[in-house]
Amino acid sequence: MGIDKQALRKIIADASRLVFDENIPPEYLSDALGRLQGKAEALVFPLSAEEVSGILRYANAAGIPVTPRGAGTNLVGSTVPLKGGIILDLSRMNRILELDRDTMTATVEPGVLLQDFQAYVEAQGFFYPPDPGEKASSIGGNISTNAGGMRAVKYGVTRDYVRGLEVVLADGTVLNVGGKQVKDASGLSLKHLLIGSEGTLAVITKCLLRLLPRPEASASVLVPYADLKTGIQSVLTILRADANPTAVEFMERKVVALGESFSGVRYPCPDAGSYILLTFDGHAAEVAANTERVRDLALAHGAMDYIVLADPAYAADIWRVRGALVKAVEAVSEQEPVDIVVPISRTADFTRFINELEASSGMQMVSFGHAGDGNVHLCVVRGGRDAEAWQRELHRNMDQAYAKAYALGGVASGEHGIGISKRRYFLRQMPRENLAVMNRLKDALDPRHILNDQKSYITGGTEHAEPV
Amino acid sequence: MGIDKQALRKIIADASRLVFDENIPPEYLSDALGRLQGKAEALVFPLSAEEVSGILRYANAAGIPVTPRGAGTNLVGSTVPLKGGIILDLSRMNRILELDRDTMTATVEPGVLLQDFQAYVEAQGFFYPPDPGEKASSIGGNISTNAGGMRAVKYGVTRDYVRGLEVVLADGTVLNVGGKQVKDASGLSLKHLLIGSEGTLAVITKCLLRLLPRPEASASVLVPYADLKTGIQSVLTILRADANPTAVEFMERKVVALGESFSGVRYPCPDAGSYILLTFDGHAAEVAANTERVRDLALAHGAMDYIVLADPAYAADIWRVRGALVKAVEAVSEQEPVDIVVPISRTADFTRFINELEASSGMQMVSFGHAGDGNVHLCVVRGGRDAEAWQRELHRNMDQAYAKAYALGGVASGEHGIGISKRRYFLRQMPRENLAVMNRLKDALDPRHILNDQKSYITGGTEHAEPV
Repeated sequence: MGIDKQALRKIIADASRLVFDENIPPEYLSDALGRLQGKAEALVFPLSAEEVSGILRYANAAGIPVTPRGAGTNLVGSTVPLKGGIILDLSRMNRILELDRDTMTATVEPGVLLQDFQAYVEAQGFFYPPDPGEKASSIGGNISTNAGGMRAVKYGVTRDYVRGLEVVLADGTVLNVGGKQVKDASGLSLKHLLIGSEGTLAVITKCLLRLLPRPEASASVLVPYADLKTGIQSVLTILRADANPTAVEFMERKVVALGESFSGVRYPCPDAGSYILLTFDGHAAEVAANTERVRDLALAHGAMDYIVLADPAYAADIWRVRGALVKAVEAVSEQEPVDIVVPISRTADFTRFINELEASSGMQMVSFGHAGDGNVHLCVVRGGRDAEAWQRELHRNMDQAYAKAYALGGVASGEHGIGISKRRYFLRQMPRENLAVMNRLKDALDPRHILNDQKSYITGGTEHAEPV
Repeated sequence: MGIDKQALRKIIADASRLVFDENIPPEYLSDALGRLQGKAEALVFPLSAEEVSGILRYANAAGIPVTPRGAGTNLVGSTVPLKGGIILDLSRMNRILELDRDTMTATVEPGVLLQDFQAYVEAQGFFYPPDPGEKASSIGGNISTNAGGMRAVKYGVTRDYVRGLEVVLADGTVLNVGGKQVKDASGLSLKHLLIGSEGTLAVITKCLLRLLPRPEASASVLVPYADLKTGIQSVLTILRADANPTAVEFMERKVVALGESFSGVRYPCPDAGSYILLTFDGHAAEVAANTERVRDLALAHGAMDYIVLADPAYAADIWRVRGALVKAVEAVSEQEPVDIVVPISRTADFTRFINELEASSGMQMVSFGHAGDGNVHLCVVRGGRDAEAWQRELHRNMDQAYAKAYALGGVASGEHGIGISKRRYFLRQMPRENLAVMNRLKDALDPRHILNDQKSYITGGTEHAEPV
């Protein structure tokens, strides 16, 4: 069964917001990496929950697959329309609707970009802590993957800043979950089930977000260590010391070297084997006290130096290298991004395993990441491999990496989501009974499997009409 | 169909952990208030997830209702076995299994009491922030209602400290959700769906809890105001000021007077109309700085005084009055406990409405609560009413109170849960489509409706065998 164009035109009257077939630009058929390419019959730009509801009601009745997308910055294929059907692009629902100073909340549409939202609230004296690397991502996308980022050590992840959502279910029902109240013990938390569900249960049309007062001051510190293990072990001590760091990042020296060449900034102490990069924020006196508190601890636990980055421009340079690590790798070769998360006490074990796997396999694996929360980012480097060898070797090596992560008590993704790219590893490692429950919930909320079917955890059958 | 005693004896071989029929002590048929009384054919004390699984497998196959319970301190009838069947008492699963210093987590069985757990982790240099009023409640019960408490302003609620759970589903499947990793974007969050589900979806058999370093210092401040509205309005300013209070409680003077008589402690400034009671914690210098930061703000916003409770014994006395308010009311009369939560900016509107309702209805309503998060505790006082008049007037007045709370953007319960007692108000106010989704999730996870059926949000049909 094909798409009924007239039916869609009745819902979206404005022809500029409705694109069919070969007029759909190819970038809408993929994700940020562009490696996976889907197909679709319609690309729709709704402007309201009512339009989203109309489209879903139609698609659900007709059994047509729907692929929601925000800014399209995802790395795991979540926005690839695998099964044809309709692409539901929410990027034009990008208004900031309210800033409520009394409840310290903001209401935004899902297409608002993180960077725009952060700038807006900071100009108003507030602070939105979630800070994933990709600042041009959409708030709706951040919620759909429960995005994390550097500041999770002190402030938590996106989930912790979602007070409420307006969503549209697969059958077109508009649902408001959560609200401006802080506490809630009133029935099941639909809000928390929907956060991180990767567009498989509902489409987000409004986001009520929690804000904090903007911190008065912040300071960064670079701490070199002889090797990675010493650095990572010292983080455990730092976290127990009640010094409340905002961000705790680790980088191997060899990774930093790549970043240095890419960005033209030199790190101090080039004979170090690894660096820990810390940030503190809060009131000025508190920041100063916490910065000093960690100095003694770090030096007592193997730090070669403790370099407070007092000059803001220099601090920004040092952070710029950290921020550019993925791009530095990509400037050299295609890479597979991995964001495995393990219990923080196993971070050193996991990175050692990766170093050994790199040596034994001959496939370069650049590791860095969030030492403060055990979220290890790997860039697995393709190098000169042809397509077939790259896929074969990548799968062989990653099967081992993910198995190790699960054996250490970790999971497949800390913040990117599962999408398509990590399904292989996620489905193998996640216990069967957990997958079964997730699929029962999918069946309960989207019985015809129209929303992002066959992605993430979804293994159950589908009632889709065959793609056109 | 009756219960097959032999089948239960095969699962629980120890006769001292299996009680039948008229040998079941009556306190197991009720909650902490004892007003509602259920019935049951068996009371079981399992010691392991395997035993819980065996019992649920049997009950599910036979269609026998199961009512889980922890310490039985709930106030809303959650532990009342409405439909007969089996009472599953988890209080003997009360071991602290692990303290993991590196990941700053503890693993406990669900029957561990909050007060025992707090004492244990504090002796080890750690801190478990959730702090509901009832310290003799069980950790499993805290998770089942997403318990809140005083320290939620700074630290959040129980949900924010649950890293993982072992649960048993209605069909006996043992499921592990979450884990020691900090971040998770790997499939649906079953953990977050289960938290706060009031025993309707699964039985908790193990809890992995997040700890913080124990704060170095804390200080309390009592701030009198001429009236309640001025006090509550000043809280909005205090919260925006980045002074990071741990607890912000409000009390009307007339309530404090009850508490004073009950506990023999006198509050300063007896001509005040209301008090705000604040706590700060953290490093000593930070506590001192934040305490001073709020002084100027409070005095600029109508505070009559700003009394730092420097003597710990005196501070404890002042807090003891706050802690004893419910008991002070109950010493005089039966009362209905209410824990409505509204957006913090509407707290003053809601308490004004309650004052007016009290005046117009002639039913005494004592209000106090968590000014820092909009969670208003009411004690609605029975006084000399006979049973019939009490129920009739209570319902008439509470219908108005809950309708007002929802109109202000609030919900029925901030921390007690819905159970049986608040169903009337919750079911009337919660949108029909939200209830429908909650019931679809119930049907998906507990299709025979054996777990805590007809409580909280559950409106759907049941396949139970008829109670014996």
